[in-house]
Amino acid sequence: MVDFKMTKEGLILVVGDYDSLESALSEITDKLTQMGSFFTKGDEIALLVENHSKHVQDIPRIISRIREFGLSVSRILVGKPEEAKISSGMKVVQRGETKSGTKLVKKNVRSGQVIVHSGDVIIVGNLHKGAEVMAGGSVVVFGKAEGVIRAGLNEGYKAVVMAVDLQTTLIQIADRMTHEKGEREIPSVAHVRAGRIVIDRWNEVSFEEVMKA
Amino acid sequence: MVDFKMTKEGLILVVGDYDSLESALSEITDKLTQMGSFFTKGDEIALLVENHSKHVQDIPRIISRIREFGLSVSRILVGKPEEAKISSGMKVVQRGETKSGTKLVKKNVRSGQVIVHSGDVIIVGNLHKGAEVMAGGSVVVFGKAEGVIRAGLNEGYKAVVMAVDLQTTLIQIADRMTHEKGEREIPSVAHVRAGRIVIDRWNEVSFEEVMKA
Repeated sequence: MVDFKMTKEGLILVVGDYDSLESALSEITDKLTQMGSFFTKGDEIALLVENHSKHVQDIPRIISRIREFGLSVSRILVGKPEEAKISSGMKVVQRGETKSGTKLVKKNVRSGQVIVHSGDVIIVGNLHKGAEVMAGGSVVVFGKAEGVIRAGLNEGYKAVVMAVDLQTTLIQIADRMTHEKGEREIPSVAHVRAGRIVIDRWNEVSFEEVMKA
Repeated sequence: MVDFKMTKEGLILVVGDYDSLESALSEITDKLTQMGSFFTKGDEIALLVENHSKHVQDIPRIISRIREFGLSVSRILVGKPEEAKISSGMKVVQRGETKSGTKLVKKNVRSGQVIVHSGDVIIVGNLHKGAEVMAGGSVVVFGKAEGVIRAGLNEGYKAVVMAVDLQTTLIQIADRMTHEKGEREIPSVAHVRAGRIVIDRWNEVSFEEVMKA
């Protein structure tokens, strides 16, 4: 179910369609342990998860597992393993990790780039159309967000999505999704209330939980 | 140099003025190890660091050390140990820790409250006048920020400070400070460029480092 595929452009880790993430992760661990001596710390591989749309929310955890072995994932490929070419797919932007576990990205994220991080992601710049963020936690775009933002992939409904101009094509928080956008040029916050994603203006956010002082 | 002071309102950990943070931290460790059996996990103490203004940037690390022993710091006191009353000082707001190490605070932070965190802090709400954030990393206020923001206390000049309305009384990033504010109601980013804090509009941010794609 988990295997490497060698291409002339590099190595692809192919994770076949699965029912249980935990067992997929443990197969990845076994595979990487087996192949340990084959890799040098910092080597880059591509990742292809079969049935991508079903498993998209697992990708941060899969990538974190791979990173534990000192490897970095340079691209996420979409499609069938037999068709996969390493030159296609979304380029994973690795920069900007902070000590604290948040990813701080100080630049625009362009079409074809994807930021994958198991914690929170803060982008100081724009998220262009065709770019994507997959975050275990919350996502802040301190700029214009036109791409796809998937948040709460680890943390669930607590996660929030914020942008100075929230013109996303898709927002996902845990398993909820919306194609709604914020009002133009009004900083907005997307969050889950009563089981669905709502988008509030920055100065009118009302969370479901009552937070005590 | 490090000692507990008992008051009828609770216990205060008093850290005397020091030259080396490392030696102060190791004294704290020794003291808490000695007194280990005295505490129950989750007990709250107050913290007083002598010569507060000189050591303010060490406070997140001191608090993290204390938290390693299962204690929580409920207040930060300012003044001389002999005058310290536990009812004075800044109330440390503990809520909102995320798995990732970022602190996500979903409410307004009011006068007299302080958010202390060794990583990044994201506030969805306002930071009122008289409130303070001390962060090891970056700080996002997705609201109006009128209080004091100290960022980069661990991460240094890489840290940034952002708010939808940046009307702070003081911004500190590592050892740099400014009383300048952002333009009213224009989302703004404060960051260190050429050794000083500059404040840019959200859509005109220019970082010193050239980040490669």
